Order: sequence, then structure tokens, then C-alpha cells
Amino acid sequence: MVKILIIHGPNLNVLGSRETAIYGVETLEELNSRCEALAKELGVGLDIRQSNSEGEIVDIIQQAAKSVKCIVINPGAYTHYSYAIRDALAAVKVAVVEVHLSNIYAREEFRHMSVIAPVVAGQISGFGADSYLLGIRAVLELIRDAR
Amino acid sequence: MVKILIIHGPNLNVLGSRETAIYGVETLEELNSRCEALAKELGVGLDIRQSNSEGEIVDIIQQAAKSVKCIVINPGAYTHYSYAIRDALAAVKVAVVEVHLSNIYAREEFRHMSVIAPVVAGQISGFGADSYLLGIRAVLELIRDAR
Amino acid sequence: MVKILIIHGPNLNVLGSRETAIYGVETLEELNSRCEALAKELGVGLDIRQSNSEGEIVDIIQQAAKSVKCIVINPGAYTHYSYAIRDALAAVKVAVVEVHLSNIYAREEFRHMSVIAPVVAGQISGFGADSYLLGIRAVLELIRDAR
Amino acid sequence: MVKILIIHGPNLNVLGSRETAIYGVETLEELNSRCEALAKELGVGLDIRQSNSEGEIVDIIQQAAKSVKCIVINPGAYTHYSYAIRDALAAVKVAVVEVHLSNIYAREEFRHMSVIAPVVAGQISGFGADSYLLGIRAVLELIRDAR
Amino acid sequence: MVKILIIHGPNLNVLGSRETAIYGVETLEELNSRCEALAKELGVGLDIRQSNSEGEIVDIIQQAAKSVKCIVINPGAYTHYSYAIRDALAAVKVAVVEVHLSNIYAREEFRHMSVIAPVVAGQISGFGADSYLLGIRAVLELIRDAR
Amino acid sequence: MVKILIIHGPNLNVLGSRETAIYGVETLEELNSRCEALAKELGVGLDIRQSNSEGEIVDIIQQAAKSVKCIVINPGAYTHYSYAIRDALAAVKVAVVEVHLSNIYAREEFRHMSVIAPVVAGQISGFGADSYLLGIRAVLELIRDAR
Amino acid sequence: MVKILIIHGPNLNVLGSRETAIYGVETLEELNSRCEALAKELGVGLDIRQSNSEGEIVDIIQQAAKSVKCIVINPGAYTHYSYAIRDALAAVKVAVVEVHLSNIYAREEFRHMSVIAPVVAGQISGFGADSYLLGIRAVLELIRDAR
Amino acid sequence: MVKILIIHGPNLNVLGSRETAIYGVETLEELNSRCEALAKELGVGLDIRQSNSEGEIVDIIQQAAKSVKCIVINPGAYTHYSYAIRDALAAVKVAVVEVHLSNIYAREEFRHMSVIAPVVAGQISGFGADSYLLGIRAVLELIRDAR
Amino acid sequence: MVKILIIHGPNLNVLGSRETAIYGVETLEELNSRCEALAKELGVGLDIRQSNSEGEIVDIIQQAAKSVKCIVINPGAYTHYSYAIRDALAAVKVAVVEVHLSNIYAREEFRHMSVIAPVVAGQISGFGADSYLLGIRAVLELIRDAR
Amino acid sequence: MVKILIIHGPNLNVLGSRETAIYGVETLEELNSRCEALAKELGVGLDIRQSNSEGEIVDIIQQAAKSVKCIVINPGAYTHYSYAIRDALAAVKVAVVEVHLSNIYAREEFRHMSVIAPVVAGQISGFGADSYLLGIRAVLELIRDAR
Amino acid sequence: MVKILIIHGPNLNVLGSRETAIYGVETLEELNSRCEALAKELGVGLDIRQSNSEGEIVDIIQQAAKSVKCIVINPGAYTHYSYAIRDALAAVKVAVVEVHLSNIYAREEFRHMSVIAPVVAGQISGFGADSYLLGIRAVLELIRDAR
Amino acid sequence: MVKILIIHGPNLNVLGSRETAIYGVETLEELNSRCEALAKELGVGLDIRQSNSEGEIVDIIQQAAKSVKCIVINPGAYTHYSYAIRDALAAVKVAVVEVHLSNIYAREEFRHMSVIAPVVAGQISGFGADSYLLGIRAVLELIRDAR
Repeated sequence: MVKILIIHGPNLNVLGSRETAIYGVETLEELNSRCEALAKELGVGLDIRQSNSEGEIVDIIQQAAKSVKCIVINPGAYTHYSYAIRDALAAVKVAVVEVHLSNIYAREEFRHMSVIAPVVAGQISGFGADSYLLGIRAVLELIRDAR
Repeated sequence: MVKILIIHGPNLNVLGSRETAIYGVETLEELNSRCEALAKELGVGLDIRQSNSEGEIVDIIQQAAKSVKCIVINPGAYTHYSYAIRDALAAVKVAVVEVHLSNIYAREEFRHMSVIAPVVAGQISGFGADSYLLGIRAVLELIRDAR
Repeated sequence: MVKILIIHGPNLNVLGSRETAIYGVETLEELNSRCEALAKELGVGLDIRQSNSEGEIVDIIQQAAKSVKCIVINPGAYTHYSYAIRDALAAVKVAVVEVHLSNIYAREEFRHMSVIAPVVAGQISGFGADSYLLGIRAVLELIRDAR
Repeated sequence: MVKILIIHGPNLNVLGSRETAIYGVETLEELNSRCEALAKELGVGLDIRQSNSEGEIVDIIQQAAKSVKCIVINPGAYTHYSYAIRDALAAVKVAVVEVHLSNIYAREEFRHMSVIAPVVAGQISGFGADSYLLGIRAVLELIRDAR
Repeated sequence: MVKILIIHGPNLNVLGSRETAIYGVETLEELNSRCEALAKELGVGLDIRQSNSEGEIVDIIQQAAKSVKCIVINPGAYTHYSYAIRDALAAVKVAVVEVHLSNIYAREEFRHMSVIAPVVAGQISGFGADSYLLGIRAVLELIRDAR
Repeated sequence: MVKILIIHGPNLNVLGSRETAIYGVETLEELNSRCEALAKELGVGLDIRQSNSEGEIVDIIQQAAKSVKCIVINPGAYTHYSYAIRDALAAVKVAVVEVHLSNIYAREEFRHMSVIAPVVAGQISGFGADSYLLGIRAVLELIRDAR
Repeated sequence: MVKILIIHGPNLNVLGSRETAIYGVETLEELNSRCEALAKELGVGLDIRQSNSEGEIVDIIQQAAKSVKCIVINPGAYTHYSYAIRDALAAVKVAVVEVHLSNIYAREEFRHMSVIAPVVAGQISGFGADSYLLGIRAVLELIRDAR
Repeated sequence: MVKILIIHGPNLNVLGSRETAIYGVETLEELNSRCEALAKELGVGLDIRQSNSEGEIVDIIQQAAKSVKCIVINPGAYTHYSYAIRDALAAVKVAVVEVHLSNIYAREEFRHMSVIAPVVAGQISGFGADSYLLGIRAVLELIRDAR
Repeated sequence: MVKILIIHGPNLNVLGSRETAIYGVETLEELNSRCEALAKELGVGLDIRQSNSEGEIVDIIQQAAKSVKCIVINPGAYTHYSYAIRDALAAVKVAVVEVHLSNIYAREEFRHMSVIAPVVAGQISGFGADSYLLGIRAVLELIRDAR
Repeated sequence: MVKILIIHGPNLNVLGSRETAIYGVETLEELNSRCEALAKELGVGLDIRQSNSEGEIVDIIQQAAKSVKCIVINPGAYTHYSYAIRDALAAVKVAVVEVHLSNIYAREEFRHMSVIAPVVAGQISGFGADSYLLGIRAVLELIRDAR
Repeated sequence: MVKILIIHGPNLNVLGSRETAIYGVETLEELNSRCEALAKELGVGLDIRQSNSEGEIVDIIQQAAKSVKCIVINPGAYTHYSYAIRDALAAVKVAVVEVHLSNIYAREEFRHMSVIAPVVAGQISGFGADSYLLGIRAVLELIRDAR
Repeated sequence: MVKILIIHGPNLNVLGSRETAIYGVETLEELNSRCEALAKELGVGLDIRQSNSEGEIVDIIQQAAKSVKCIVINPGAYTHYSYAIRDALAAVKVAVVEVHLSNIYAREEFRHMSVIAPVVAGQISGFGADSYLLGIRAVLELIRDAR
């Protein structure tokens, strides 16, 4: 069975109580349930991880390279400056899709720049929890095309 | 029946023969067929337009505002400088999703900046023709949420 | 009788329904009526044109050069990047005044720069429909001075 | 009777002898006379002040706030860097119009940026003394609209 | 008895009626009273000055150098461009603390840069009138340390 | 017989009456005649087009790809911002030479940057009508080399 | 009893032996003792944490949100680039004050920019250990005002 | 007898006690005496003024235009941002030389840019009080050449 | 016996399988063996650490300060933005050499800037594993010179 | 007989063996032969010089001013920073054309800027050796026009 | 006898015939004669050199260090980019004054920046040949002060 | 026997007497002796050259290409702007290592950028004369690997 690694970056664990005008009231658990439901429907497995630590996210990506075929990652604030996560993603040989809950291009200037985007297959931004669901569909298409 | 306007910007009419290393060999007709198939599956209608002219795209957006509920637009090269299209999209009261065939953040510097992104709901970039299919799903979720 | 060409740029045709918090509820027809009324009062004729297309605006300017003595132009979003319209205005030998409904210097960064301004006689910005009325008076003063 | 405060910024007192290729040979007294004539015609009063000092212009604005309903200001060179005058104008609750004799967008780079423009109602630039006359009309329209 | 010079820069004299959403409804007189009360409690004297003029603030600083041991200054808009005030502060041999009512780093871009900060001992920003009270405590610590 | 497409961009149709200090008094018709004469001498055919519209120029380029082997283009003001024309030229598989009447590097700052240059074979700038004649020779050498 | 969380960022654990010309010889333990003394005097409790890890500081902030009412944070070098800490602080609903031992505006260019400052209530910089003591007073004023 | 106006800008009145490592211990009175001595030797008169106020310096320049033939000015900190003084100097029809005590190009970044320099005849920087003496000689040469 | 701390930054643990076109197929274990061999030859001891976490690298540096005399560090991606590691290195009183496997100046723009370089003794970049061997020799020369 | 000076800048003497993917395998001797052949055909003389030294190229230009009527120069890498060569060309009163073998606008960023271009008549770039042949034709047209 | 080295940089040998609107008709020989006359009057010797070559100017400076006490240098175009000449001047232990014929701050942007100025004692710019005479006086004052 | 060309750029001939606080008191002769000693130990030959002239360094590199297999170059100040030397190094087919005596990243801003680094194998900076010795070892490893 195809397995997808989903990585939630910093501050996503407080989803639902954090700046709700921007991020909504849905919690991370609820978002994860919706991902699981779609995965079941599409016949794939999920491995879901969250971390506030840049180094730990690099660790997760490196270990994942051995067991999964694709990654859906929301790097949170690290999107804008973590060249370490970028290098980790560039080093693994799996399909990667970058997702964002909010439309990062309609927010503060510093959120317009993603240092991650140049090394991933594609980016989906601005559809709330649906960004993850679209990301799961997208990453599956990518490995289907590659076969 | 919900109707989605799909707008193909400049040079998309030569898809399939244009810089195939980047854009692939699928023609615009084939891409449109895949969109139609998904639309049929989801029970929605499509109105598909292509234009190389900035002014004509503004006209299309203004007229669409009267008959459709959502727009999926690939502004092509106009993505990077057409404030006229941006203003037209900001003026209409329908859900808009911006899509790109290639990962615009992994290409030339000038393609990293979208003047369209700040006024649309979200952006999907880098999945080839699948960007349109994901865009159709995404825009339907948006109007479902808004109801 | 002196004749003034009034050019409305992109998206001005949807005035009244477009972003009304910024542009108000007055339609382009109502705005034009007020211009006509003032023109009548001042004993001059008007030729009023609207286009969403950059190339068509260049055409209008070139043709006008043969029949009118002055132009009042609101280039809309083209204000910020159309060097083609700038060159067209620089090429004609008539008095030109640039007008804007909103105060472009109190809005987004990209609206602060006008590539048109350096080649026209003057600019009037921020008075709603009154910007056009002031523009008509201003351009008439210009050709009066030049005589 | 409605009263308008007209503020002439630095170096405007030497109008008529200063860089006449740019500013013309009309003196400040002559310019003021034309303003007075128009004011009389429109049935309003004028209070005209000139100062070369940034601090004094701030004082004038603050005091004016108690007795006038609208201000027409030509901040001269302070246009480009006086955040103190900007703050003073932002603090008063009267209608303000910024005027310039020359087209500041057709001159040196540093004159293209106005730190004043974002806090005033509108800006008129490039019509010589007529900029003031248009400014008087514009500011009267503003308070008429606000009633 | 130790004496502290408090300098209020441009537009602070209209505190209480100026942009109250940002600066609150407390007047400069009330703010000064709170400073006086704290000074009394701490056994120090205050010399309080306000000016809208950059040159006059330089004069005040130079004269103060002869009679006071420390300065608490809110340079208002001059914070962002007055190298003359910076030089005056760098020239005096007294302890200086820069204060701001609002958090200047959470406002417009141009307010993020202080040309004053590099030559003072420290900066306190964002606590309303409390910024002055904290500034008085801070500057007293500074001269205590220096003894 | 080899056929060359010559494209004149915006405002070139008013050549001869437009800013004659920069562009000279020769009209577009006269310039075209000189090109025709040289073409005849060299034994090649010409297809000459002019348009003020960016979209139309994209159309012309796309259609030309089917019938000509080389293009000489003067993109006029579009040189500096039309990524749509750039993409159209990059998409066609014919030899392209960019020409300019004036030395664009000796004029205003914004004219120094060509977004077209990186995708064409070469650029010739500053020789008046001779730029076109040199361009015709250059583009013929290019296809000769490629054979 | 009101409780304040004090967070010391990276390298503050080596205070007293680290670049003593800038940071002085007082150790972190001594600094903490002075904070405790003031807390006792003011009748509030302290929770003091230090970490060199960005992710751990995000964890500390998130957990604190459940038990404390206010935070005094010295983000150390993370001040200048940690959007993850910024987001964590923006997500919690407690009063936050940013403090710095040295005057960051009088040091290297890269230390002038705080990505933290825009989301906190205020900033105190340049008073050595007293920055913390002033920060404790400031944050208490903030929650007093908010009641 | 030829008369030279010498203008000392802000903070020059505290020369001798101000940042002596940079400016030396000589007072403004002593510097002025040396200028007077040289003037006497060269058979010219001096009019020496000092002001901390930008507006007052503009006033001095405007009045001087009626009675002197040349100006030697040290604009102090205003050198770097006073477009008002620049405009005043550009408006007068007398020879102007800009002088600085210290080498402004070997100091902080912001002191490298003079907004005054483009409108004066020449600049002398870095020779302490000798900069004034050289300036007096230089300005006399200028009016000698112009005769 | 002199002891050298070698620190491998993020993603160096996947050396040999990571982007082999840039970094080669040698693994970190093989690289470490070569370092050990040279150390033995030169009669010094090595302490080798690897971490993907910025905070942990700061911890390692602080602890090392107590037991080693010199550090050879390859900060990986942290080279370009970790001011926390920079501060940690600036705080320790040991000789430090920065090394890079690839020539960082011949790669992407963002890799050209090292925030670490200004606080270390020297930098060696571009020689693959040999960069470490040269770094060991260099750091030993540094402490030899200092004795 | 008209004489043209051809100047080859630095590294052009190693043409044919240097970065052949960019510059081709033709040697400088072969290129010169083609220029001589064309010169003979057009009835003009050539004076061909090559130097790697900036100062020597300035010398060559200054001496040429006495004996030739036109210059064709390929300044090589000096194109991008030699203001000394620019000044030398601006000083001579002969027609100058700048040529480049490769399309400098399609290469590294630093090659996009020519400090030479603003002072020459025109520029030809991207046609290999043909750039010189076109340059010879262009410069002859220039002096023909000037007669 | 004190000896001064005068260095004329590139293109100064063609003074008198070069861009005479900027540099005047006086030749280098005439300028040198005026320098010699002043030197004689002041009882000092001159050593005058001119070179178009950057490397040769470095040689001249290095050799001069052995025999002269002071240098007056006009680096011509090298002023704006020759860090090699800057380093050479920084290396010698003699007094150096930088001079320019024209006011470099009133010309093209690129001439506003001198990389030489930060390492010399002072700069004199804009007085034509008098810049050299003032430079000779200035450099003599410098060594007089240093004795 | 393998032969290495060592090139010393501008001002290195005055080593030992030049800015000794930065470069030390060791002369170039002493540095060269240490290089010779190491070369002897490693069984390779050296060819050592020094020049202050950019053009001459280009000549040296071109000629070396015929007789040596590797180059160690310290381009001195040319490091920061000589694209001519960069092009010369890119043209030769030998191994090149760039060395610097001082840590160029810990000095003035302009020394942080090397235009040479992108075309060489690697760079060693900051170890005084040891930079050369490490460079010799490094370049030998490079040709060993390439065999």
C-alpha cells in the first residue's frame, strides 16, 4: 500500500485556538481525521507528524525517505527561511508537495517568499484544510505519472 | 447547475508544441477534455476561454461575473505584471482560483512574483494539467463553504 | 468648438458595482453625464471612450491626435506599467491631464508609481468623479495658456 | 462663511525669481491675488500663510484646525521627507488637498515620492498657479460631499 | 537634586485629540502630571519641554547639557529622519533614553527606522504613557550605574 | 524562397511625426521600403506587420511559426515588460533578432532592461532604420549557420 | 497570584563569560536573582526558562499560554529571523514584552531588525539587566490596563 | 568689497566640546577668527551666521542673495536630507561652496550622501577648520573665473 | 594531547546518498575515517559530532568551550542564517575554522552569504572531504601561532 | 580611404580554445580574416588591435582619435565596469559601435549591464563573429549619415 | 625641500580637447604649469605623473612612498571602482588628498561614489584646475599639522 | 614534475610594510620561501609571479595554461571586481584555488564579494601565509583526484 507522510510544521499543533480569524476553529485532530478519511477512500496509508523544531523536521524527512513514497508538508513559519529543511527535501528521492492553510501571498510581505518551493514538485496555498486534501490528491498523481 | 469559467491566458493555445521540456506534449484540447470529464463526474458545467490579449481577458472576467459562480484562471505570463487583470478579478464577486502548469517558484526569478495571487482565494502551481483538476475541486469547495 | 477626449481605462466600465468601498456607487454613465454637463457650461465638446485593452487605448490616442486639442485620461491599472500608453501620449502634440478617482498614493505600494505622469502636463488624484471635472478645467487652462 | 487655509512651504516666497525655467515669473503675491479672486467669486474666505520652517508649518496646521474647515497645502521640498507635517495633517479633522506648481513626477527621482499624499484627500500637480485654483475648487467639493 | 529633561517632539501637544485610536484620549497635560507624580515619588525634578520645530529641539538639547544629567525624549516623527537631533544628542554628555507611545515596529514601514536609537543608551516603545514612566526609571538607573 | 517576418510594435505606425528628435522624420512606409529593397537584393521575401496590441503581437508570432523561418522584431515599449511576447518568442522554433531604432541604453533607466533579449539570438540597437537592415542580414546568417 | 514567564533565548546561559565588553560580567543566575527580588517586592511569581533551541522556545510559549498571564522574552539571536517564535507569540493570548540587554540599534546592521517586535506589546532595549526589571514592570502595567 | 556669507549649520555652535575625537577642541569662535584673518588678508568681508533650524537657514540664504556674491556653507546634519536647503541654494544666483570639518566619506553610511552637493559649485571635506579656509579661497576663485 | 571538535551541521548525516552530483558518494563515516587518519598522523585527538538541530549545535559549542582548544565546523544550511550559532562561536574563546564541501560561491545566490564567517578565523570552501583535512591543518597552525 | 579601428578586449586572444560552448572554435585570426575580407569588399581599411589591459585600451582609443574615423569595439569583460574606457570613448570624436560575440542578455546577471553602451552610437550582441561584420557595416552607415 | 607627488589618472592627458563643456579648454600642460607656479611660490617641489593604467598608478604610489611626503591624486574614472588604488593609498604612510576637476556629485549617479575617499585625508571636487591648487595647499597643511 | 603557478595580485609586493595590523610583518620574500620549502617537501615545482596590473595578470594566466597544471591565486583587490581575471581563469583548463591572507568576510562590506570564486575550485581565506600553504596542498589534491 502506498504511504504518504504528512508533516505539520511549527504552531500547527495549536490550530483551532490560534489566530482563528486567519486559521479557523477546526483543530489539528479534526483536520487529520479528514485527511485519514480521504486516504481511506483513495486506498492509501498516512503517517502524520507534527513538530515545532526545525532540526526534528529534518530528522523526520530523512527517516521518511526509507519508508514512504511521497510527502505533503506544511512547513509553517519555516517556509520563509529554513534552508535546512529545503536541503533535507532536496536530498530525499520522493515526491513532495508544499501546502498552506492560508493564501500566503495575500498576507504580510515576509510570507510571500518560500525557500521550500523551488525544490518541491508543486505548491497549494489558500484553501484551509482543503489544501491538505488537494495535496494528497496531487502527490498521488505525481507518483502515478512517474510510474 | 453550477458553472465554472476556465480562463487560459497567453500562449496556452500552443500547448503541446511549446517548450515541451517544461509544459509537456499534451495539447490544450486534451487538457480541456480532462477538465470536461472531471466536471461531468462532479456534476458541474464548464465555460472554457483562451486569449492572448490582456484586455480581452478583462472583458471575459467582467462578463462572467453575470453568469458563473467561480473562476479557475491560468493567467500565463500576465501573472507577473497585469494589474488590469488583478483589478478585474478583485471587482467580481465570485470565487477565483489561480493555477499554473509548472512550479513557477522553481523557474526564472521574474516568475516567482504573482500580482494576481493577493486577490484570489488560493493558488495551485506545479502539477501540470492536474493543477486545473485540483483547481476545479478547490473552487467547488470554496463555494460549498460559502453557502 | 474646442473638443476634449476623455479616456476611461480598464475596469472603469464596471464602476458603481466594483469595490464600492473604494470607488463609490456612481456608475460610469452618471460620471459621464456630470462631465457632459460641465462641458456644456464651459462651451466645449467631449469625446468619451472606454477600453479594457492597452493596445486599443494606444490606437485611440493616436487617432485623437488628429481631431482634438486636449486629453483627460484615467489609465486605470495601466497607470503603473504601460510604457506603450506613455509612449503614445509622449508622441501626440496635445495637452494631456492624468486623473484618478481614488488617491493612488494612499493605497497599495504598486499604485504609488505612475509611468504616465512624467510625460503629461499634470495629475489630479483622489477626488472621485470630481477628479474628472477638475481635469477638464485644468486642461482648458493649459491650452488657454498656450495660445 | 467657509474659510480655506492656504499654506505655502519653503522657498515659495521667492517665486518669480527662483529657477524661472521651472516655476515661471509670476510672484507669490500675484499667485495669491488670483486665489483671492477665485475665493471671492466662490463666496469663501482665504487665510494665506508662508513659511520656510517645518516646525512653523506644523504650528500653523494645528492652529488652523480650530478655525478652518479645509486646507490647501504646497509643502515644497518638505513634501519628500517631512513626516512631522504628515503627522500634523493626519491629526487635524479637516479636508486637505496637496498641490504642486510643477509636475513632480517629471522631475528628479527624489521628487517623485510624497510622504504627505497618503494622509490627504487628494493631490494636484503640474498646472502652475492653476494647481492652487483647482485645489480650492477640489477642497470645496470635498466638504460639500461630506455634508 | 537630580533633574531630568523630558522632551516632547512634534504633534505631541495635540495628544488626546490626535488619531485617538492610536494615541488614546489622555492629553499631554495628564501625561505630564503622571510623570511629575512619579518624579516626586522618586525624589527627582523634571524639566518638561515640547516643540514642533527640529531646530528648537536641537537648541533645547544643547542648553540642557549645562543643567541636567539625563534626558527622556520622544522625538515624534523626527525619530525617522532628523540626523540633526541625533547629532545634538551624540554631542551632549548626559544619559539619554528614547521613548515612544505606540509600538513603532507594528506600524507603517517608515516608522520602523529610528535614526536616533544608535546614539542613545536605550529605547522603550509601545506602552503608551507608561513608556515615559519606564523611561524615567531607566534613565535614573543609567546615571546610578555610571557613578 | 526564405521569408522573414518583420514585426513593428506599438507607436511605430506614427514614426516620422513622433518625437522626431529621437526617432527622426523618416516614416514607417519609407523604412519598410528600404527593408523591401534590401530583401530583394538578398533574394528573400518579407512579411511586414505592425500592431499596438500586445495580444495581437502574440497572435502574429504564433501564426508566423507555421510559415516563416525567421523574425526581426522591434517590440517598442513592450520590450521592457511583455513577458507574454517573450513567452511567445520562446515557444516558436524560428530564429529571432531584436532591433531598436534608438540606443536604448543611452535613454531613460526603464528602457535599459529588455525582457525579450534573453530568449532571442541577438540584439541590435541604436542605428535608426539601419538597425532593421542589419537585423535582416543577421537573421539570414543565423539560419545559414543552422543549416 | 499573577505569574510571569521569563524566557531567555540562545547563548544567554553563558552570560558573564560571553563577550563581556558587550554583555558585562553578571551571570544569568545573578540576573535571575534580581528579577526574583523585584517579583517578590511586586507580589508576583516568576517562571524562568532558558533554551538554545528555537523549537523548544515555541513549545515553552505554547505551554505557558495555559498557566501564565504575561511573558517577558529576550529572544537573543532568534530576534532577527525566527518567524516561528513570532507566530507562537502571536498565537497566545497573553501580554508579551520583548527585552534586550544591549542596545540592538547601536550594533551590527543585522541586529537592527526584530521580526518579533511587530507582534508584541512593546520593546525595551539597551539597559543591561535593568531591561528585564523594566520589562517586568511594563508587562504588569499592561495586564493592569487590560482589566 | 566682495562679501562672503558663511553659514554654520546645526550643532556647530557647540564645536570644541562636541565629540572632540572627531571634531577637535577648537571652538566656533576660534574657527571664525581664523576665517576673519584670512578674509582680511584677501581683502574681502565676511558675514557669519549659525543656526540649528532648517527653516532659518533657508531664510538666511534667501536674504543673502540680495547682498552677497558667494556662500560657504557647512550644512551639518542637514547635508543628508534637507531638500529645502538644496532648493534654496539652487534658487539663489550666487557661487556656493559646501564644506565639512570631517571626511564625511570615512564615517557612517548615511553621511556619505549629500543632497546639497548636486546644486553647488564644489565640495571640500575632511580638513578640519582648514576646510573653511580652502572654501573661502575656492569661492573667490569661482567669482573671479565668472567675471 | 590537543583535541579538535569537528561539528557536522544539518543533512551531513545523509552524505553519500544526498544530491550526489554535488556532494559525491563518500559517506560521512568514510569522511570521518579520513579525518581520524590525519589526526593520528598529526598526533591530535578528534571529537566528532553531527546534528540537524540549530539549538543542539549551540549546546555542543558551549560545552566544547570547556574541553577543546579548536573547532572545525561545517554549519551546512545554517551557514546562511543562524545568528544563534554565530553568537555561540563568538562567545567561546577557541580557534574556529569554517569548512564547506562544495564551493558555496559557485552555487545558488543564497549560499554566497555566510553569517558565520565574520566571527571565525578563516574559511575553506570547495574541496570536498579535503576541506575538512585542510581545516584540521589550518586550525592547528592557528593555535601554534597563538602560543 | 576610410579606416576603421577594431579593438578586441581581454581574453579575445584565446578565442577558439576558450569556453568553446559559448564562444565557438573559430580563432581570433580566422575572425580577423573575415573582417578583412568584408573590409576589402566594402573598400575600407582596418586597423586591428587586441589587449588584455584596460589602460592600454584607453591608450589605443586616444591615439586612434587622430587617424581613424570610426571604431568597432568588443570590450570583453571590461564592458561591465570600465568607466575609464567609457570616458576614453566619450572623449573621442569618432563614431563608435559596441559588439559582443555572445548575447550578453542571455548570460549571467553581471553581463547584462554595459557601462559602455550609453556613450556609443549603438550595440550589436549575440551573432558570434557576425557581430563584428554587422558592426563594420553599421559604423560605415553612421559616418555616411553624418556627412 | 618638501616634495609633492601629483598623479593624473586616465584620460587626463587629453584634457583640453575632451568633453570641453565639462572639463574646459585648458590642457594638462597648462594645468601643470599653474601647479608648478604655486609650488614655487610655496617653496615645495612637484613630481607630476600621468597614466591611463590602473596597475601603473599602483606602481607609482608604491615607489613614491619612498621619496615624497604627500600626494595629490585625481584618480579619474578609477575613483569609482579601483579598490587596488585604494589599497595602495591605504598602504603608504604619506598624506593624500583626492581632487576632481568637475563636481562629481552633480554628474551621473555612478560618479557620486568614490571608493578612494574613505582612505584619504580629504577630498576637493568641482573647482576645475583650482581643485589641484587647493589640493596642494591642503596637503601642505596636513603635514604641517602632523609635525 | 608537477608545477604550480602562484600569482600574487596588487599591493602584495609591499607586504610586511603595508597595514601591518591586518597583514602582519612578514614580507613577500619570506612568504615565498615558506611556499618553496613546502613545495620541495611535497616534490613539486613553483612558478611565482606578482603584478599590480590587471591586464598583466590576465597575460600570466593565459601563458601559464600552456606549462602548468594548477594555479594558486591571491587576486588582492581585483578579487572584488575583475571580471577580466575571472574570464581568464574560466578559460584555462587547469585547477585553480583562490587564497586570501585575511578573512575577507570579517572586513569591509565590499571585500565580502568575490567575482573570482564562482569559477575556481575552492577558496581559502583568513590564515595569513598559511592560506598559501593550504592552497598548495588543496590544489595538489584536486589534480590527484582528477587523474
